[in-house]
Formats: sequence, structure tokens, C-alpha cells
Amino acid sequence: MSTQFFTLGTTQTPFVLQSGMGLSHAQLAYETYGTLNENRDNAILVFHALTGSHHAAGFTESLPAQAGKIAQSFWTEECHVGWWDEFIGPGKSLDTDRFFVICANYLGGCYGSTGPASIDPETGESYGSRFPKITVADIADSQMRLLDHLGITRLHAVVGASLGGMLCLSVATRYPDRVDIVIPIATCWRVPPLQRLLNFEQTFAIESDPTFNSGDYTGEERAQRGLAAARMISHKTFVSLDALAERAREEIVHREDDLSWYRLTHPLESYLLHQGRKFIRRFDANTYLHLLHAWQSFDLVTEAAAEDETALFERCRGQGFLIITIDSDVCFYPNEQEEIVSMLKSAGVDAEHVTVHSDKGHDSFLLEPDLYEPFLRARLER
Amino acid sequence: MSTQFFTLGTTQTPFVLQSGMGLSHAQLAYETYGTLNENRDNAILVFHALTGSHHAAGFTESLPAQAGKIAQSFWTEECHVGWWDEFIGPGKSLDTDRFFVICANYLGGCYGSTGPASIDPETGESYGSRFPKITVADIADSQMRLLDHLGITRLHAVVGASLGGMLCLSVATRYPDRVDIVIPIATCWRVPPLQRLLNFEQTFAIESDPTFNSGDYTGEERAQRGLAAARMISHKTFVSLDALAERAREEIVHREDDLSWYRLTHPLESYLLHQGRKFIRRFDANTYLHLLHAWQSFDLVTEAAAEDETALFERCRGQGFLIITIDSDVCFYPNEQEEIVSMLKSAGVDAEHVTVHSDKGHDSFLLEPDLYEPFLRARLER
Repeated sequence: MSTQFFTLGTTQTPFVLQSGMGLSHAQLAYETYGTLNENRDNAILVFHALTGSHHAAGFTESLPAQAGKIAQSFWTEECHVGWWDEFIGPGKSLDTDRFFVICANYLGGCYGSTGPASIDPETGESYGSRFPKITVADIADSQMRLLDHLGITRLHAVVGASLGGMLCLSVATRYPDRVDIVIPIATCWRVPPLQRLLNFEQTFAIESDPTFNSGDYTGEERAQRGLAAARMISHKTFVSLDALAERAREEIVHREDDLSWYRLTHPLESYLLHQGRKFIRRFDANTYLHLLHAWQSFDLVTEAAAEDETALFERCRGQGFLIITIDSDVCFYPNEQEEIVSMLKSAGVDAEHVTVHSDKGHDSFLLEPDLYEPFLRARLER
Repeated sequence: MSTQFFTLGTTQTPFVLQSGMGLSHAQLAYETYGTLNENRDNAILVFHALTGSHHAAGFTESLPAQAGKIAQSFWTEECHVGWWDEFIGPGKSLDTDRFFVICANYLGGCYGSTGPASIDPETGESYGSRFPKITVADIADSQMRLLDHLGITRLHAVVGASLGGMLCLSVATRYPDRVDIVIPIATCWRVPPLQRLLNFEQTFAIESDPTFNSGDYTGEERAQRGLAAARMISHKTFVSLDALAERAREEIVHREDDLSWYRLTHPLESYLLHQGRKFIRRFDANTYLHLLHAWQSFDLVTEAAAEDETALFERCRGQGFLIITIDSDVCFYPNEQEEIVSMLKSAGVDAEHVTVHSDKGHDSFLLEPDLYEPFLRARLER
């Protein structure tokens, strides 16, 4: 289905963020697949990863005008096929013959939901540096409003990998009565040190780009060097290094615009630069920083106003969890998910833990539907 | 002993680099400790790591004027005590009652040896972007010239960690008749993929700093943001993450000059930024890039003009190796040293392999003399 929009907050009653700041007339871009049944109890909410969009399945060549010019310009060919197209559809893991699947671009995003590049209705200009800080809890809240709008009180399931998995945990603990099944994939419940350092390096790279201009860039110059650097820093954690070395072409491509002093000495460098260059065509630096900030400030216990981890997860006793680990993941290491499982079990929650064996690293959740299909299906259709 | 200088190449007979380029009147800054014996056979050449200096032991408050203004300005308090002071001295692992220890700042360096910031005698101006590319083999060659100057034909030993270990391997294979004992610590014989990616990220960060100006910066603006980013990227590989988390102070220090948009959210970020900020006071961005380039282009087999690895290491049959691994090292992973040992053994070379158990990661070789002392002493004094 094509992109739809839901508006959040009015001038009188703004949507209030964790920071206390309010947003009015904020848009969420979303897609749905399948049909909501009469009981309205077959809905699955899918959360995308850091740089994903609401377009999880099917083919969407362009965004509606309402998404805004910037979002349209980021809608490159890479975006046309839904990022989880092999997982969502009739007879697939998330079977649209049975389920009504929803996916929304995150608040702060750059694919049609209101973000820093959007026009602030109060001023008629882009938010830029004035866009408020967003947390994982804010994103969860905004999507619960979308469910209200769709008339869905209780979800059959929430499913998400990476940052999307953090969203699953947020909904499960902050809205325990609104979801039955929780499926966090390759994720964490708090930010581990290495991840925190890598995220910070990326923030620093974007901030250090003089064209970033504290977030108030316009036109062609929009911190693209910094954003490319950020992507290169993160990319190595998404794929296994063996896969990366394999993917790197043997020839070295050096363009005159790449680096002034340095000459590429190895296909790996060339490949990495290619990843950076490709990414900046489809993403906004400000959105990247805002979602990184949500990630860095993720604190499940505090955001859920729980006393401690046990009190937090005790809320989930009415839910069933399926936690999925990718054994070769170096972005969200397997021990992060082990911690989640162990805490859920201590809190008396029904938690199943599955490890898929992949040589593809973190990105496996995008690339290998067959690995996940039996577990997803079994849990969703039980 | 205080800094001394040796001049390499004349206008008539320049010092020729692997690239074919020549350098005339290039300086090597070095220090020596202990006394060269009558047979001139008790010399140990120590190689420093990427950002080290020739000042390996003792206390040196300032550099002689000959080192140049830039080198002097980089000689901050951090540099005053030799970086291996606990390893070198009377009765220490490298016992100066018995051995004559030499350490030279690498060609291309910024602590008194001729590098990009030095004045080119042919033009009277800083080399800047015109400084030629340096390889590990070039650095090895330049130091063999220094040995000629000191009247040392054959070394008792070469010792070095990290990039210094790569230098050990270069000397051992390119000058097999000039060394008896080879002690590479926490190093590699070829650049592994992750290291290559991390090095490239750092190069990109420096290149992307507009004040880098292709290497022709002058004055205050000298790619300091880019250099700080590079240091932050590398720092996380030098220490164990547990140690890093421990070292990070609990308070968050945010200075107005740090980042325009982002507010530090965690002590780890603050700590990392502190590392970057501290580093740029004592190092030159151009030197950093040149030494990174030497590292990235390190190809032991080609540089030694050997047919293959076996032919390469067969040259070392007259030498005794002690290879040291740090078990918690995430900069030079233990399997890198295992490869070296295995190839040496296949080539019929006397190779001893020792693993030290440390929770400090790569930097252990700077911090824990007691771990290394028994092995270094036993091998050097056999």
C-alpha cells in the first residue's frame, strides 16, 4: 500500500515529548499491508532500523507530495523495494493473509514523517537546529497515537531489529496492555560501551563538518562529508568483515573529488568510500543525528518510569517474547540479547530465545528471510 | 641521554625512498641509553608506536633548538618522561648496564626527525603536501643508516610494539645479517581488514577537515578537529573497553567549544573527547597521515622483494624470535601474531611465542612492565 499520513498534535494540544517540548501538526508517514479484521486484533507493528523508512514491503516508486520535497529527494532507487519485502506478504513470515502489518517512519525521520528538514508550521521555515530532541519513548508514544487513530487498542505483535528492537522493548514496557507478542531482533536493552563510542564518533564526524552549520544547513551543502564518514564508521559493524572483504571489488576506484592528499591503497577503502557516497544520497544528516541521539540516550528503565529492571520487565508477564540473536553480529553482540532473556526470565515472563547462525553479521535480518521464517511464523501464529 | 641528530642524504646523494623520491639533509632525532661496548655488539634498536617519539627513557623536558619550532611546540608535558621508561634502564628489562639502547623518531615524524612540518632545505619552506610518501621499509632503511653512522654493523636485538613491531619484521627480513634477536610485540605481518578500515576512517576524518587544506595548513588551524576524530576512532582499540569505562569520569564536562548541536550524554563521550583534545596538542596531522599511510601500505613480502612468505622468513634462520601477544588486544588481535609464529616455524626459524594476560588491551605494552620483564630479559640475556 502507498504512503499515508497521520497528524500528531494541534496548536492547542501539541504532542508532548519526553523533554517537555511540544510538537504541533507533526506528521507520521506510514504504510499498512493486509486487512485489519473485525475484532481489530490482528495488527502487527513493525519498527525499522536507524536509517530505514515506513516502506517495509512492496514497491513504492515515489512519495506523495505531502511528504515534502526533501523526503522526495531522498527517495532514491534503493528505497523503492520495501526493506523487509521478503518478510511481509501473503504466505510470508508476517503473513498478510492473516495479519494487518503497519510500519511508520520515525518521528524525526526524513522519509515523510516530520523531522528537522520539515517546515515548522509555526514559522513557515525548516526546523533545522530548532527541531526538538527525540527519544525512543517519544517515537513509541507517537506510534501509539497512530494506533489510536487506526482504532487498534491491542496489537497482536511488535517486531523490530536493531534500533527497531529497542522500540519493541519500549512499547512492551511502557504500554504493557497494548501488545501480546514482542519480537526484538539483534538489539539491546541499554547502550553498550563500544556502541556508545561508535555512535559518538559518528555524531562528532557530522558536527565537525563545517557545512553542518549547527544543523541549519540549506541547499546542496548539508554535511555530506560528515555523514559519509558516519556511515563508513557504522557500516563495518553491519556486515561481517569477511563478507565485506568479499564484496570489495578488486579494482580501486579513485575519483578526483574523494580525498585531496591520500590515494586509495586498497579495495576495502574504495568499497567503504562507496558505501559512504551512496548513503548520503538517501539520508539527511540532521535526522541521522536525532535518531543517533535517541539511541544514545536510550534508558529503558527511566523512560518507562520503572524502579529497576525487575520491576520493568514484570510488567510484561502478560506478553510472550521471542528474542532473536544473530551469532555473527558485531553491532549488537549476542550477549546483549542474553541479558534481555535472562532479565525477562527472572521477572517471570514467557521468553523464548533463538540464535540464527549467519556469516552475514548484523545485516542478516535484512538479507536472510529463510533463517527467521520458522521462528517468526511459529510465534506469531501460535 | 638528550636528543641527538643524524643527517641523512646530501644534495648530491639524496636518501632514496621506496617511491624513488629522494630526501636530502633529512634529520633523524634519536636518543641512546647505556654504553656501546668495545665489540660494538650490545646494541638494541627500539621502535616506537604510531604516535611515539625517540624519547623512550629518562626525562627530557625540552628538545634542542635543532628539532625545530613545531617539534618543540608538540613536546608537551606528556612527552617528558620516556614512553618506555619502565622498560629501559639499569636493571630493567632492557638493562642499560649491559646494553646500548637506541631509539629514533621515525622519518616523517613530528618530534625532531624530518617530516611534513619541517623546512625543506631546497625551498626554505615547510614541506606540507610536498613531503614524499614514506613506507615502513623507508623507516627501516633510514635507521640502518643511523646504525652505520654509529658504527654498529650488527644489532643484538630489535624490539618494538604495534607499528614498532612491523618495523622489527621489516629489519629482520630486509637486513637479516644485521640483527640477532627479533622481538615484535602486539603486531601483525600484514594489515588485517578491520585495522585497514579503522585506519581509513581516520585518514578520511583528517582529509575532511577543511583546515587540512591538502596538507598545506599553517598556523593555528591545522586539521585539529579531524585529528581529534582520528584519535577518538583509534583510542577505543588501544584500551580494553572495561578499562575505558572505568577511566571515564562520572561527571560530564561539556565545553562550549566542543560540539554545537549535540550535548554530551554520557561520561564515555566526555572521556573520548578529552582523549582527542589532549592528543592534538602533541601531534601533527600531516605526520599522522604519513605514518598511517606507511601502515596501510605495509607489505612485508613486496618491501623485502621476497617471492613469498616462506622465502621471506627463511632469511631469518640466523635470528631468534620472541613474539609477544596481549590476550585482550583489539588493535592487533592475537591471531595476527599466531600467523607470524606459524610462518616462522614453517620457515625453520627459532621462534618463541608468549601471550601475556592483561585486562588493559593493546596499551598493556606501555603500562605493565612486570608482565614482559621475565620474557624480555631471558631472551635478551640468553
